Amino acid sequence: MTSQDELNSTLLPAETEVALERAAESAHRHELLFSERAANIKQSAVRDVFDISIRPGLVSLAGGSPYLKSLPLQELGVTAGKIIAEHGLEALQYGGGQGMEQLRRQICEVMAAEGIMDADPADIVITTGSQSAQDVAAKVFCDPGDVILCEDPTYVGALNTFEAYQVDVQAIEMDEQGLVPEKLEQRIAELLAEGRRIKLLYTIPSFNNPSGITMVADRRQRIVEICRAHNILVLEDNPYGLLRFDGHPLPPMRADNPDDVIYLGSFSKIFAPGVRLGWALVPRHLHRRFYLACEAVVLCPSPLTQMLVSAYLSEYDWKGHLANTRAQYSERCSTMLGALAEHLPEGASWTTPDGGFFVWVTLPDGVDTYPLLYQAIDAGVVFIPGAAFTPSDEPSNKLRLAFSAVSPEDIEEGIRRLAPILKTAIAESA
Amino acid sequence: MTSQDELNSTLLPAETEVALERAAESAHRHELLFSERAANIKQSAVRDVFDISIRPGLVSLAGGSPYLKSLPLQELGVTAGKIIAEHGLEALQYGGGQGMEQLRRQICEVMAAEGIMDADPADIVITTGSQSAQDVAAKVFCDPGDVILCEDPTYVGALNTFEAYQVDVQAIEMDEQGLVPEKLEQRIAELLAEGRRIKLLYTIPSFNNPSGITMVADRRQRIVEICRAHNILVLEDNPYGLLRFDGHPLPPMRADNPDDVIYLGSFSKIFAPGVRLGWALVPRHLHRRFYLACEAVVLCPSPLTQMLVSAYLSEYDWKGHLANTRAQYSERCSTMLGALAEHLPEGASWTTPDGGFFVWVTLPDGVDTYPLLYQAIDAGVVFIPGAAFTPSDEPSNKLRLAFSAVSPEDIEEGIRRLAPILKTAIAESA
Repeated sequence: MTSQDELNSTLLPAETEVALERAAESAHRHELLFSERAANIKQSAVRDVFDISIRPGLVSLAGGSPYLKSLPLQELGVTAGKIIAEHGLEALQYGGGQGMEQLRRQICEVMAAEGIMDADPADIVITTGSQSAQDVAAKVFCDPGDVILCEDPTYVGALNTFEAYQVDVQAIEMDEQGLVPEKLEQRIAELLAEGRRIKLLYTIPSFNNPSGITMVADRRQRIVEICRAHNILVLEDNPYGLLRFDGHPLPPMRADNPDDVIYLGSFSKIFAPGVRLGWALVPRHLHRRFYLACEAVVLCPSPLTQMLVSAYLSEYDWKGHLANTRAQYSERCSTMLGALAEHLPEGASWTTPDGGFFVWVTLPDGVDTYPLLYQAIDAGVVFIPGAAFTPSDEPSNKLRLAFSAVSPEDIEEGIRRLAPILKTAIAESA
Repeated sequence: MTSQDELNSTLLPAETEVALERAAESAHRHELLFSERAANIKQSAVRDVFDISIRPGLVSLAGGSPYLKSLPLQELGVTAGKIIAEHGLEALQYGGGQGMEQLRRQICEVMAAEGIMDADPADIVITTGSQSAQDVAAKVFCDPGDVILCEDPTYVGALNTFEAYQVDVQAIEMDEQGLVPEKLEQRIAELLAEGRRIKLLYTIPSFNNPSGITMVADRRQRIVEICRAHNILVLEDNPYGLLRFDGHPLPPMRADNPDDVIYLGSFSKIFAPGVRLGWALVPRHLHRRFYLACEAVVLCPSPLTQMLVSAYLSEYDWKGHLANTRAQYSERCSTMLGALAEHLPEGASWTTPDGGFFVWVTLPDGVDTYPLLYQAIDAGVVFIPGAAFTPSDEPSNKLRLAFSAVSPEDIEEGIRRLAPILKTAIAESA
């Protein structure tokens, strides 16, 4: 007897039956009420796996969670306690929609550490994570059918957010030096020839999520200039910029291009995601509408968590903490690269990131990594299949591995569990 | 020499001039990039006044901030400190998009205190304030040109949020018993005759913001039935429901109508706005899309502030605190009503709320309260002009006075300052 039969054979009280019938009738009626854009709002594969990956015993190479264990939790607890005890009437009350001025000044110092030297606190909006800034960018700039260009692959959360506004997201090829300018120009020309309106280029130039690839310096400027020439705004998402553990720092695209780049930063990776705070540095001529749209969504970011971050930046050695976590990420990344070299079969290749959280594995053409996820879960390891990171519905021969939140031992063990699955898949595809 | 002349006469370095020219050129080009909806995103008059009202010496009867002084700030500081010190790896990390299960269970208890006895934690989404839930409701249900019905007057933040989605917000007349069912039916009939699609009725049935009016019991059910008959969802916003200081509690519209009402609750008024947490209780058949849309905007609500609220609900006498604040609000409301009776000139009338934060003053026809705001600021008192609370651009002879965040002495003083301005305006309009 299946569980469906079981359900059918259960005698329900008459009252419950009426309630169920009414709910079914409502569901049918209300289906007509959804907006057109609602059909585009879908579950992120990453979040799907997020739920699975908390099962005990599983090694999760899926979620891009930061390493938090080196945060001074006892001291931060004392700081938070003081904020509430001594400034609770401010911390627990409504605040300004743009975010607190003191924190906006401190954000300018954080951006200066990245190479943006001319930021004005007045041009910043503090947002509920940088996810919320992506949402507002799509809202303020995109009508249904408008195009946002992005890297192939790109951050799945941005894809979901843009598609919720019926945006046509077009992914442009990357190579090991980042987004390819010639491919960008070619796609822009094709789209314009079709009469399409291109509004934004969304890019994660440093340690791209999911590929780990960093856009080289000369491409950064060239890509801004291509976009400027076609009146396309650059939406530069830089959550990992300060998490470089190899090679030389590169200034963000925003640094020399204050009028053409909306720059998104986040405290999720350099401090903690739980405070849900990011920011947008917006060209002055676009700032007001951007800010008002932020306010219409959340009224204001949390004063409590803003004050905690502000205290963290002024009272703690945040750069020292960053150096510690960078060392952790570096070790974990090396461990992962070593384990991949040791265990992965011929036919698999992967990126070598200089920072960030992710390694991107490519299997031979014809291998679809999505069904492999379920085999991997059975073997006790989780990853994100590559298809999640492109707007297309095509199968993908890629997969993302995150080393950020897993101990070196677990990374070793995870790759050991994953390898035979990839080996079989490659053998079967040959 | 004016400051403009001064600016013109200053010799700017060539570099600065080039930078200014470039910014002006970008501003011009980028104007073309805004979405159609961006033109609808405007500054809330309430937020305008929010900035003014923090000037020292002003009595602000403008902002609807809750009274927080009776919160046990020392103890809450200790609780927050413990959460970070003992559970920081959870509190500061990413969390689930729907919000924490324990807090969703506790929210069911809060709603039970309102009269909603059958809520299931699985049907709740925790949101970044209930503002964010209003944003998602418009996003998930409304295409451009769709209609949301609301009370006249209604919450200005909801108006801004809905209009950002190019929704046509249609305000329906209220009387002292709340939204008038006959007027609602009539407007629905007119709109349907015009071929319009009506998606939602947005209502604040208890202690409406800004009018303070409460919808009587039999109208609540009748209005749900009218909406059901026309396949219109009810979006019931109930931030003040537990802040009744007079009369008898009324169950929310959601109580007996689980399939036709999306119910919005908030911790901003029963605890503290600074945690930026509200929730939506969504009919099960609509829940998934609502939840996914929330996730696309913010990924997840802050685990840190969720854990603080959860601890507040389980470890503190939150009902006792509510009783205290209700007593405060009751006293303040009485003081305001007394001062209005003593000082306001003939021709002015006002509502007598049984709870919430607001009294709504009506002046004779032909008086526009918007210009009076600037006179009031000069006299040292701030209010919100009535025009802010309707979708129309017509002048309004109403104004909103908030008693929630002001001491009785300041309320007295504020009304004393306001009265002569209203008196002159009424005399001039006669």
